[in-house]
Amino acid sequence: MKVENLSDLFLHTLKDIYFAEKEITKALPKMIKAADAKELARALESHLEETKGQVERLEEVFKLLGKKPQGEKCPAIEGILEEGEELMKEIKDPDTRDAAMIAAAQAVEHYEITRYGTLVSWAELLELPDAAKLLSATLKEEHNADSKLTKLAESKLNKQAA
Amino acid sequence: MKVENLSDLFLHTLKDIYFAEKEITKALPKMIKAADAKELARALESHLEETKGQVERLEEVFKLLGKKPQGEKCPAIEGILEEGEELMKEIKDPDTRDAAMIAAAQAVEHYEITRYGTLVSWAELLELPDAAKLLSATLKEEHNADSKLTKLAESKLNKQAA
Repeated sequence: MKVENLSDLFLHTLKDIYFAEKEITKALPKMIKAADAKELARALESHLEETKGQVERLEEVFKLLGKKPQGEKCPAIEGILEEGEELMKEIKDPDTRDAAMIAAAQAVEHYEITRYGTLVSWAELLELPDAAKLLSATLKEEHNADSKLTKLAESKLNKQAA
Repeated sequence: MKVENLSDLFLHTLKDIYFAEKEITKALPKMIKAADAKELARALESHLEETKGQVERLEEVFKLLGKKPQGEKCPAIEGILEEGEELMKEIKDPDTRDAAMIAAAQAVEHYEITRYGTLVSWAELLELPDAAKLLSATLKEEHNADSKLTKLAESKLNKQAA
């Protein structure tokens, strides 16, 4: 798509994160299966449910713009997920693999945090308060998911891996 | 490299971010050249200088581990930078391009924040306090760089682009 102004850029970024969220819903079940610690599997499962809700919110934002939900290939999330998957396959020790998976999941969270942060700010500028509200709700969830992973890593998994 | 324990994972992630920082030092001059707003060019210039210092800090951490500084291909940063460069080339309107570049630079910052956050926590677990100190200093700089970009975007550039 041609990007000529902030509205176009907003729509482009929306498609980028829509693609990313869909990729994440495919990657998470593999991570849940590979997780050794039950707490990690549970945290990833609950984030998978949350991600499905985030996809729906994005679909609502597309609707508010009068557009059909559509993804646009996002090399960033592909790279982030690729790195995580490589390590997941390569590491045999379960505790070390869990530590690597938490780091990978946090890299995903941070990608989402930066994109949703930008989208909220652009939605406000473009005077799309309903879109801003939906995107803010997701941004909050991503921050919480990242904090939960930090706590999990610091309290248990990293200690096992050390 | 084979990753069998947390020490290996720490070294692997160190090589990943070393590669990423080197790629960032190559990408930033192109962004500085493409920036329309002087404030954005200045912010990116100052971050380029900071990044060079971060590369040196990483070299010190390698030294502390008795290892030669070495990068390892990082598909995540490649994807993040690729997305930013595509938009930079494609967008003709200078204000919209500046807004896209700030978003791209923030995606880079967030990648660094997540990796350094993980590395600091692992350095502490591995009882490498000097490494943790060096990595924390960079983490702090990345957080500041991200905040500066948010302020820049909100105070000026997004308004021009809207």
